[in-house]
Amino acid sequence: MTENEEVKHIVREKDDHVVYIGPKPFMNYVTGVVMQFTTQGAKEVNIKARGKFITRAVDVAEVAAKRFLEGQIKVKDIKIDSEGFKNKEGRDVRVSTIDISLVKA
Amino acid sequence: MTENEEVKHIVREKDDHVVYIGPKPFMNYVTGVVMQFTTQGAKEVNIKARGKFITRAVDVAEVAAKRFLEGQIKVKDIKIDSEGFKNKEGRDVRVSTIDISLVKA
Repeated sequence: MTENEEVKHIVREKDDHVVYIGPKPFMNYVTGVVMQFTTQGAKEVNIKARGKFITRAVDVAEVAAKRFLEGQIKVKDIKIDSEGFKNKEGRDVRVSTIDISLVKA
Repeated sequence: MTENEEVKHIVREKDDHVVYIGPKPFMNYVTGVVMQFTTQGAKEVNIKARGKFITRAVDVAEVAAKRFLEGQIKVKDIKIDSEGFKNKEGRDVRVSTIDISLVKA
């Protein structure tokens, strides 16, 4: 994949305005968020993450809002939640989630 | 320090209703939050963290609200921010912060 294709891939096809945070290079996610606002005309972008990627979601939101689109976007709302499920060993585990909503300022 | 003293230490003296998340055992922080509501009569508790401890702050809030004090407390507000400073090598770095406000339901 080219870098552009990779960024498109991070912003899932079905919901153009959600960026899911994972283990790819940090700037891919920042670019994903910024592009949604600048070239895709999004009025609102949701940054979502689970477990250890939650810190990264906050970093992506902060870098997008304070460095790349300073004064142009702001945090509208932040939701946290948790999901319970059984892991491979059959134990009940819980993972936290975050959903950061950014909007045009 | 006894475990109780350690929990008290985590909830800083100056502001009784703030729990700062760090590298101590996870349950210390959960206990710190729960005790504020149950034995210290707090109406609101703020969970604060920086950098890599942000994920942990969300975990502490979720475990306190969904397991220990289910139906008794809820998330009122979540703020994210970032602070810039110079590191030991003189480079400008930025660290994200989170402040989760829990209140009696």
